[in-house]
Amino acid sequence: MIRCMEQLFDYVNQHSEEYIQRLREAVALDSVSADPCKRSRCVDMAHYICEWIERLEGKALVKHIGKQKFADGQVLDYPPVIFGDFCVDPHRPVVLAYCHYDVQPADIQDGWKFNPFELTEEQGKLYGRGATDDKGPLLDWLWAIEAHRQLGIPLPVNLVLCFEGMEESGSFGLDKVIEEESKGLLSRVKYVCITDNYWLTEHRPCLTYGLRGIVFFQVHIRGPQMDLHSGLFGGLIHEPLNDLIHLLHTLTDSQGNILIPKVMDSVAPVTKEEESIYERILFDTEQLRKEAGQVSQLRESDKVKVLMNRWRFPSLSFHGIQGAFSGQGEKTVIPCAVTGKFSIRLVPHQQPQEIAHHVEQFLKQQFDQFHSGNELQVEWRGASPWLGDYHNSNFTAARLAFKKVYQVEPDLTREGGSIPITNTFQEYLGGEICLIPLGSPDDGAHSQNEKMNKHNYIEGIKVIIAYMDELAKQISYQY
Amino acid sequence: MIRCMEQLFDYVNQHSEEYIQRLREAVALDSVSADPCKRSRCVDMAHYICEWIERLEGKALVKHIGKQKFADGQVLDYPPVIFGDFCVDPHRPVVLAYCHYDVQPADIQDGWKFNPFELTEEQGKLYGRGATDDKGPLLDWLWAIEAHRQLGIPLPVNLVLCFEGMEESGSFGLDKVIEEESKGLLSRVKYVCITDNYWLTEHRPCLTYGLRGIVFFQVHIRGPQMDLHSGLFGGLIHEPLNDLIHLLHTLTDSQGNILIPKVMDSVAPVTKEEESIYERILFDTEQLRKEAGQVSQLRESDKVKVLMNRWRFPSLSFHGIQGAFSGQGEKTVIPCAVTGKFSIRLVPHQQPQEIAHHVEQFLKQQFDQFHSGNELQVEWRGASPWLGDYHNSNFTAARLAFKKVYQVEPDLTREGGSIPITNTFQEYLGGEICLIPLGSPDDGAHSQNEKMNKHNYIEGIKVIIAYMDELAKQISYQY
Ligand SMILES: [Zn+2]
Ligand SMILES: [Zn+2]
Ligand SMILES: [Zn+2]
Ligand SMILES: [Zn+2]
Repeated sequence: MIRCMEQLFDYVNQHSEEYIQRLREAVALDSVSADPCKRSRCVDMAHYICEWIERLEGKALVKHIGKQKFADGQVLDYPPVIFGDFCVDPHRPVVLAYCHYDVQPADIQDGWKFNPFELTEEQGKLYGRGATDDKGPLLDWLWAIEAHRQLGIPLPVNLVLCFEGMEESGSFGLDKVIEEESKGLLSRVKYVCITDNYWLTEHRPCLTYGLRGIVFFQVHIRGPQMDLHSGLFGGLIHEPLNDLIHLLHTLTDSQGNILIPKVMDSVAPVTKEEESIYERILFDTEQLRKEAGQVSQLRESDKVKVLMNRWRFPSLSFHGIQGAFSGQGEKTVIPCAVTGKFSIRLVPHQQPQEIAHHVEQFLKQQFDQFHSGNELQVEWRGASPWLGDYHNSNFTAARLAFKKVYQVEPDLTREGGSIPITNTFQEYLGGEICLIPLGSPDDGAHSQNEKMNKHNYIEGIKVIIAYMDELAKQISYQY
Repeated sequence: MIRCMEQLFDYVNQHSEEYIQRLREAVALDSVSADPCKRSRCVDMAHYICEWIERLEGKALVKHIGKQKFADGQVLDYPPVIFGDFCVDPHRPVVLAYCHYDVQPADIQDGWKFNPFELTEEQGKLYGRGATDDKGPLLDWLWAIEAHRQLGIPLPVNLVLCFEGMEESGSFGLDKVIEEESKGLLSRVKYVCITDNYWLTEHRPCLTYGLRGIVFFQVHIRGPQMDLHSGLFGGLIHEPLNDLIHLLHTLTDSQGNILIPKVMDSVAPVTKEEESIYERILFDTEQLRKEAGQVSQLRESDKVKVLMNRWRFPSLSFHGIQGAFSGQGEKTVIPCAVTGKFSIRLVPHQQPQEIAHHVEQFLKQQFDQFHSGNELQVEWRGASPWLGDYHNSNFTAARLAFKKVYQVEPDLTREGGSIPITNTFQEYLGGEICLIPLGSPDDGAHSQNEKMNKHNYIEGIKVIIAYMDELAKQISYQY
């Protein structure tokens, strides 16, 4: 087995120019899912991948989602979900690898150094839209299989690739496809590996075992049937925006701490083990302060507190108000109906339904005390937090893989945001999910000058090779 | 003198068809000051008035204001201020009559029953843009003079007409013209009569002796240099919008009462005389509730309290927030810089400078307690409240004029909004200012289907004739 690893790694080292050339082809297929004019490019990209899967002797399965109606009236097929079936042994569990082949919009006018759809190498960096999000990691999976094929080494695990084409547009249709296939192609999936996030620091790899959930609230307050002039009605009516400001302010204190009763009760207590994980993590809070656009101060400056605030404690952010005057200058209008928007980031063991209930109840209690005669309506939508077990086989395999390739123990990290596909896989497939980031935090996904480091791209192939190898060992230990 | 009045009133009664025909011509000159495409129509309207003034043997003086640069890059002359000088006796004081000849935009598509620029009579109502705001009242002045000329009766007072063409666009340039002429044509003005507002009820005329002032505040709070993602930064930074909500809520209680220290101290106490004025006023609070778009309840239901809240007590209205998310749906952004907008309506003896000082000081005190590290900046702009003396000669003349024409004592009213030209005249000319509304509250100025009642339009001429006559008597009593 060790012999095989060496051969595979050598093969990877010898083919870096080909790897870059093929990433250039993939980036040139400008598969922007949000743009109806580029929908045919998404389809081209899907074909490009399917042909590749078939060249690698996998079975390509194209799952169509249906038709999308755009704001301009166009009706077009959604980009399909592509599966690449590389299973050989029906008696062993299946590993599912997730990536997406669609990309964010990009225009050289927005301040790109190079044409965003023409991959450009400069000082070890591969610039191009989708280079790191998520075409580089997607190709890493294909290259890992290709290396096995070229060397005549069988894949050590039953592998199914799942490549989505609507991730940057809300992953529309994915959950339906996963649900359907949970009884078919995906029925034996036990391990899920998502390669679509980033290291915490450029200097050390990490594995991601947790994500915050979210409940997004829209608090509607309705009063008069039309906007009124404050000269005529100021002082005469209960203004909906006065209600709203008094309502919103009860949710937090001036420091941003959440004051809603019961909401903090279900937050899991911090364990000693967790503390030691956080203490080990390589992270520069001063750099974070700069990334936040030179904010004069963070709420906490200590590394562990900063990271815990981001990852494992809930937070409430106000986003804005709809229906009120939001333009420049002055306008002396009393808005007749306003909607306050805020969200709470959730952590274990908070569940959206439960938190929404507490918030709604509290808002109603407060509002009733105003006796304003206006109408309150609370709307919410939520996603659960996710927490993986970093002691399980999947994480162990990923950890050992990074150690083999980078000679360093990866940090164990979480994310402050949510990655909805994680919940989708957890819900429909169960099993062990692991997020293996391959890109660097400075890659600029979604920004101008997105890039993937050549080093991350090439070593990523080795990480995947080693991961499959280690996971195979973990699986055989169990049988 | 009584003989003259009868002759004049008879003349008016006999010419109503001509009056309506000429208003039709004036409405057809669609002098929308806000629309660069209609700027030439404002100029046409100005010529139309000047020619009329000269036909009446007045001296027409056209004061040009300069050039206006529109958003689309066009540079056009502002519509001029027109003076009509009908002074004959240099030893007696001058009466200044103010109206405006520009109108609000209007489009039949917006839901007009008739073409807004084609005057249409239906059931005693004259529909058309500008019919009541302010071309009807403007023509009333010209007809009042014309009746004197036709009957060979000299005007009883030295009269100067002041007709503005930018009122609906912020009265740009008027104050400069008034300041200049305060040492020339207007140096002997002692009485100012503004005919550009409305009766409080359709059933009884009124005279307006007070206006609320206003201070409009923009509270800027700046944090990070760019908007941030709440998944990444929620819980880590002091969010400017959290600061703003906590700041705004300290300004009022949940009932809308102002809590800012010292702001209420300078409000003049209510006198017994005032109370009796308010009690007499014809006003239907239930109808007000309906006009406010069926609000479920007013803060107060008693007529006197409602009117005092509108006219003689300050009020604070929140208008909205700039810089935060204001669209539909969800967006999990932490805005980096937000501006809260609110205004306080002022009453005697509150002055903008003084109130702004109290508000600014209070906001800064509160904000300092947050220690958020964000930046606070408070911007304001204000206009003083105005209060006339309804016992003076000008009001007495106007009161007697209404009594003569309508056989009823007019109510004494104030307005909740501000009419900035009143302050302009008070500041530069001093003297006695009286607001004589000729239109009805249901005229729909600024709305679709603006109209002036034929009755109000025709009787308005008589009111002006009687007002000049009564004012002449008042003046001669003094000499
Ligand atoms: Zn992605
Ligand atoms: Zn992305
Ligand atoms: Zn007007
Ligand atoms: Zn107007």
